[in-house]
Amino acid sequence: MFPLSQKEARAPSTCPGPASTQDLNNGCSKGPERECSSKPEQKTYDVGDPTAAFSSGSSYLSSRGSVIKWFWDSAEEGYRTYHMDEYDEDKNPSGIINMGTSENKLVFDLISRKLSESATRRVEPSLLQYPDWRGHLFLREEVARFLSFYCKSPAPLKPENVVVLNGCASLLSALATVLCEAGDAFLIPTPFYGAITQHIYLYGNVRLVYVYLDSESTGPDTRPFQLTVEKLEMALQGARSEDVTVRGLILINPQNPLGDIYTPAELQEYLGFAQRHKLHVVVDEVYMLSVFEESATYHSVLSLERLPDPQRTHVMWATSKDFGMSGLRFGTLYTENPDVASAVASLCRYHGLSGLAQYQMAQLLRDQDWISQVYLPENHARLKTAHTYVSEELRALGIPFLCRGAGFFIWADLRKYLPEATFEGEMMLWRQFLENKVLLSFGKTFGCKEPGWFRFIFSDKAHRLHLGMQRVRQVLESKPQVAEDPPNSQTQDKGSSQPRGAGC
Amino acid sequence: MFPLSQKEARAPSTCPGPASTQDLNNGCSKGPERECSSKPEQKTYDVGDPTAAFSSGSSYLSSRGSVIKWFWDSAEEGYRTYHMDEYDEDKNPSGIINMGTSENKLVFDLISRKLSESATRRVEPSLLQYPDWRGHLFLREEVARFLSFYCKSPAPLKPENVVVLNGCASLLSALATVLCEAGDAFLIPTPFYGAITQHIYLYGNVRLVYVYLDSESTGPDTRPFQLTVEKLEMALQGARSEDVTVRGLILINPQNPLGDIYTPAELQEYLGFAQRHKLHVVVDEVYMLSVFEESATYHSVLSLERLPDPQRTHVMWATSKDFGMSGLRFGTLYTENPDVASAVASLCRYHGLSGLAQYQMAQLLRDQDWISQVYLPENHARLKTAHTYVSEELRALGIPFLCRGAGFFIWADLRKYLPEATFEGEMMLWRQFLENKVLLSFGKTFGCKEPGWFRFIFSDKAHRLHLGMQRVRQVLESKPQVAEDPPNSQTQDKGSSQPRGAGC
Repeated sequence: MFPLSQKEARAPSTCPGPASTQDLNNGCSKGPERECSSKPEQKTYDVGDPTAAFSSGSSYLSSRGSVIKWFWDSAEEGYRTYHMDEYDEDKNPSGIINMGTSENKLVFDLISRKLSESATRRVEPSLLQYPDWRGHLFLREEVARFLSFYCKSPAPLKPENVVVLNGCASLLSALATVLCEAGDAFLIPTPFYGAITQHIYLYGNVRLVYVYLDSESTGPDTRPFQLTVEKLEMALQGARSEDVTVRGLILINPQNPLGDIYTPAELQEYLGFAQRHKLHVVVDEVYMLSVFEESATYHSVLSLERLPDPQRTHVMWATSKDFGMSGLRFGTLYTENPDVASAVASLCRYHGLSGLAQYQMAQLLRDQDWISQVYLPENHARLKTAHTYVSEELRALGIPFLCRGAGFFIWADLRKYLPEATFEGEMMLWRQFLENKVLLSFGKTFGCKEPGWFRFIFSDKAHRLHLGMQRVRQVLESKPQVAEDPPNSQTQDKGSSQPRGAGC
Repeated sequence: MFPLSQKEARAPSTCPGPASTQDLNNGCSKGPERECSSKPEQKTYDVGDPTAAFSSGSSYLSSRGSVIKWFWDSAEEGYRTYHMDEYDEDKNPSGIINMGTSENKLVFDLISRKLSESATRRVEPSLLQYPDWRGHLFLREEVARFLSFYCKSPAPLKPENVVVLNGCASLLSALATVLCEAGDAFLIPTPFYGAITQHIYLYGNVRLVYVYLDSESTGPDTRPFQLTVEKLEMALQGARSEDVTVRGLILINPQNPLGDIYTPAELQEYLGFAQRHKLHVVVDEVYMLSVFEESATYHSVLSLERLPDPQRTHVMWATSKDFGMSGLRFGTLYTENPDVASAVASLCRYHGLSGLAQYQMAQLLRDQDWISQVYLPENHARLKTAHTYVSEELRALGIPFLCRGAGFFIWADLRKYLPEATFEGEMMLWRQFLENKVLLSFGKTFGCKEPGWFRFIFSDKAHRLHLGMQRVRQVLESKPQVAEDPPNSQTQDKGSSQPRGAGC
């Protein structure tokens, strides 16, 4: 058991040693990073270029169509390899174990039973006809009730502030398009769930400004990858100095891939920053019910007594993660801004979900007894067991990692195993894992500025986790760990074999 | 009964008399229209401006976001009024009868029974996980088999050419984006299903170039609103002269709102035109199984032995119309062009449908016995009865209309009832219908160049049709028909009380 309160998560013992390829502390002591801004390797922000690696187009497509196709062709290399050789206990036991996709595979039995209940299934004319594109009223009412209860809102949330659509990818696409002009940007702290890049770019042509966070804690009150208002300010000013118009800030809470949970005070700070600059804040809370450690207390932005700028605060939630059904395609926006709600609703013609699925979701969300007394306790217990297993495996391997109590992932520091301290080295290690039939996600896809971090998904059945971790171990044990002074970097963890995840 | 073969549908007796506000034949005899191009009122094409009526923005939204919101606020005036006062036999018998939305309300019993069968319902882990974004393979295989059979393709269609998404609105959005740059255009013959304007504009920023068709037949081999290659050429050249880049042509077959069915020879002509100009052709076949007259023979573009340019020919189909389930959100693309398929697939993250719905659709489409022997015969018989009823009502009122054997609509000529021969006059008449509690669609929303045409949806239960037509009659009988020489126009049908729809 690893008690994982936020307080403990901030212990400065996490990720000790030279923290990054760029070694942020060299010559800068603990002073603010802008003092180091003359050193290019100490970059505190970056304006993302989603098409940096794009090469050739298709004569049948527009230039944007070619880029869109390129995302399809290139972004899914690992997943394509995986899908051609998926592990199956009986049919393909030497197939690839997927520890890369963030899905909760521990609750299919609970969810399947629930969705098979006849009460959740209904076919009636109104469900087969064109819907209100914001979502059927009966569903928006249920979503408002559900969010009021589970987000602990100070006052009941309202159905007219709810817009329902087919998942949060769609919602990001819609929000980017209606809040930003083409070429504008959102701030986002890194590392972050990298698919957001394409969600806001493919249709919306909106970019991200990376707010780089450091793996090293910089003081007793900070944790690894600590987001501060100072970092936000620096990134905003930096982007503006490059003539990039920043329209908003994206926050993920609980954070993916870190597993961090923001305290109410932190949330207020970030929202206050946004208010001062008239920035929209899109808060992605898709893991809000996947906080599995009792000691960790989650606070939805909707629980705050007073939002600094409610007209520019927009909350995303979905059933994909918290109810283990990414294939059902159900997401929802909550916003008090009627202009934003109407504009997103206008795009919902392209993001609609079946009336039958809407009925099913309403029946699911209204069953508070089942959710609170059956589903969540069992889900959390299973997540905790799985998390404990993978944590212990990593600890046994001497791999530092962030130990949190939320989400499906562990953010682990494999820098000492890189053949070279670069993103090419990171990619080489990732391919070695894949060749040994285990799919992970590597730091670059999360915009992490330090090569060598990997995300391990643990929300899977024990037999697959065992095999996956066994394959990870095989790869790592076959490699010499980088010695104390590796060429061109100080990335290793000085050979520590002790767990360094906060609270673990 | 109204035998409605294509041959008959071409009878020159349809829509006699002065045909349009612009009176195209004035001084031009039967010569090609380009000879008349010096007369502005004889415009043969137009570059649509989707935001022509847009006024003010929102300070919270981007400029495009404000336009998107404006579409939501303004485009649905009639539907909002309708939804606030929907007719219900028991609860609101004086509510509005909807003869405006193109839905098949005659088959809910058949479809509900089918979708309630336990065989169509399955909840299993693979359906709850992230899908292949093109659609689950089992569904794409079923779609390929289904289209091969019902489109009568010369060779079996292939699952890898199928992309599945949540409806044809989404597909138009995706195709416009990947085939065109922002600001580019598609040609479209008018009148056409007007929502296409927003489907290609809201995300894709793509416009339409209207190819204006004339209500008057121009010869023994033509029908009213006849599309010709000459008209396509003129519109293309006209658009180019205005520096508009045209990337493709959209064809709707069976045509909405005309109900026309293109012959194989016509299809080949239009496709040949597109090939010569390297234009993509998007063929919308969403009504292909809603051809209810035995004498009318439908030919899918996929039935052609040889496509002039298969790499630029893309076919759309959905269950919304042919299976009376617009609320289920299932549409599909068939294209032999792998670049187009991949590019659309890349956008399918934003247009995905539930895995459970995909399973259900696969089960529906595979049941060929039920479709061919139960569903389609019954559906067609009901459509025909409903069509006959509304046709007879229109005939009794002396209203000329196009009498076809496909789709859910009758395109009717109410020019003689307009208070003035303008689109304002058309709107006034439409409002009078709405005030008398019957919702219709007026010609301007279809890009029709002649004010006074209305679309009547007949695919509804008898008691609602009776009430709807009674309310239509009340409005029309309360109005004086415009006399032989109305001020400023020659729009009336010279008082004919005989049916003028071809074949009726």
